[in-house]
Amino acid sequence: MRIAVIGAGALGLYYGAMLQRGGHEVRFLLRRDYEAIAERGLHVTSPRGDFHLEKVRCFRTPQEMGEVDLVLVGLKTFANDALVPLIAPLAASGAAILTLQNGLGNEELLAAAFGADRVLGGVAFLCSNRGPSGTVHHLAQGPIRLGEFGGGLTPRALEIAAVFTSSGVPCEAVADLVKARWEKLVWNIPFNGLCALTGQSTDALLAHPPSRRLIGELMTEVVAGAAAQKLSAPISGPAFIARMISLTEEMGAYRPSMMIDHLEGRPLELSSIYGIPLERATERGVEMVRVRMLHALLDLGEPGRRG
Amino acid sequence: MRIAVIGAGALGLYYGAMLQRGGHEVRFLLRRDYEAIAERGLHVTSPRGDFHLEKVRCFRTPQEMGEVDLVLVGLKTFANDALVPLIAPLAASGAAILTLQNGLGNEELLAAAFGADRVLGGVAFLCSNRGPSGTVHHLAQGPIRLGEFGGGLTPRALEIAAVFTSSGVPCEAVADLVKARWEKLVWNIPFNGLCALTGQSTDALLAHPPSRRLIGELMTEVVAGAAAQKLSAPISGPAFIARMISLTEEMGAYRPSMMIDHLEGRPLELSSIYGIPLERATERGVEMVRVRMLHALLDLGEPGRRG
Repeated sequence: MRIAVIGAGALGLYYGAMLQRGGHEVRFLLRRDYEAIAERGLHVTSPRGDFHLEKVRCFRTPQEMGEVDLVLVGLKTFANDALVPLIAPLAASGAAILTLQNGLGNEELLAAAFGADRVLGGVAFLCSNRGPSGTVHHLAQGPIRLGEFGGGLTPRALEIAAVFTSSGVPCEAVADLVKARWEKLVWNIPFNGLCALTGQSTDALLAHPPSRRLIGELMTEVVAGAAAQKLSAPISGPAFIARMISLTEEMGAYRPSMMIDHLEGRPLELSSIYGIPLERATERGVEMVRVRMLHALLDLGEPGRRG
Repeated sequence: MRIAVIGAGALGLYYGAMLQRGGHEVRFLLRRDYEAIAERGLHVTSPRGDFHLEKVRCFRTPQEMGEVDLVLVGLKTFANDALVPLIAPLAASGAAILTLQNGLGNEELLAAAFGADRVLGGVAFLCSNRGPSGTVHHLAQGPIRLGEFGGGLTPRALEIAAVFTSSGVPCEAVADLVKARWEKLVWNIPFNGLCALTGQSTDALLAHPPSRRLIGELMTEVVAGAAAQKLSAPISGPAFIARMISLTEEMGAYRPSMMIDHLEGRPLELSSIYGIPLERATERGVEMVRVRMLHALLDLGEPGRRG
């Protein structure tokens, strides 16, 4: 499969590298890593074995990337204003578009520009971060869960899932993408925001009883917000929450992406992880009180707003 | 009147200085400022005119302070473990004890040790901070509102209020100290905590619409918590909240005491301003959801708990 990676951060670089190693023709749109990767290739460190890709197809603009079958979107959602123009040259040939970006609203943005039937979305449970230019560190992964924006299990979704799985990235196609997105939010909303706000890693939050209680309460609010959406089946609140907490405990001193964004002075993905989910819940009569408070505190701290 | 000041921070130093200038015999218990003040006196800067007290009665232990009529308590509540032993030598002679400390629980602590009939409490609306050793900066003040721990307007409360007022510190005796305490919490709970947590001053919070909304919601929760206590009359929620917001806007870029404590690496007054009010509300069936969340976030950040 010919695959274009748009938004080659830790997630895009790692999945792109795995897919190339799996035998697919992967093309990377690069900015700051272009020279390092074009000259020396792409290096992946991983507990499952490091590997190096000598020759990597690097591009500076989407116009040069040519025709592909799949566009894999890993762009940070705070850069979504740039998303449609980046993808338009690749979409012209009819490629499917899979966004693995965080939160809600990404599929809608792509569907409005390129048509709903072109768009898939997925949630990635991945711990990875960028090392020096041309290096990505893979720490741990759960499966990708992807599905059609329009819903239902299609041959296309199954095929893309198989492409990932056969390349060493466990991936499952799901019929209800909206449910998968909200399930991911049950984790993202408490941990991304609280770690970014307080500067403390997941284990420190869970070791502090009032914060642990707050995490459970935030998760319960998100489950209630999800229940008000048109899901194929409800998220099983207490059991799902207990599993998220226990998975997080196994992750040790984990620093979520939003905490790293904050520490490195980047904007935060507040609209997709907080703003749009809050709107979707409010529209359907669910007020996520603590989520709104967390959103307000994070938004206050955004660099553009500071003094 | 012979007055002992215990806890001579910005509040204790300023009120003590005003009372001495007003003709009263004030004795200060001092630690880090002892030498500076014993040698060079106490200097007050104020928009209403600077003044200097050449001779100040300084003491290093309460045992040396002798007999007084009133003990004025300004100790930070995080040091309340030391409160009773500091006051015991002064209480022996039958002095009244007036605590102007923040939050709830201080009168109860003193009453348990020295008898309920000895204790008064008050809320101070004061903007002051310490300068170099021996100097206190007075910025602005509203009135002190003080009352008997046991409730009711007594000649003693009226006399102490007159002592302050005649010394240039507007002071009112109130029959319902519990109500005055909760009214102060309507301001303290949002602004102290949010400024300490976010590092932003009151004007920045009020200029950010989601934070301004959050401040109103926190105040509404505190008003509900207050309504569940045995108050002589309810706090008039919306009108009182609107007045607090508008008074705060007039204060400009104000940094509340808890924000300064945080910036200077001191512990925060979390138990008296958050923990005990939350208990009092919960006991009477009111869950202050956002207040509890703010308390959890502040508590997580306390230095003793870090790393």
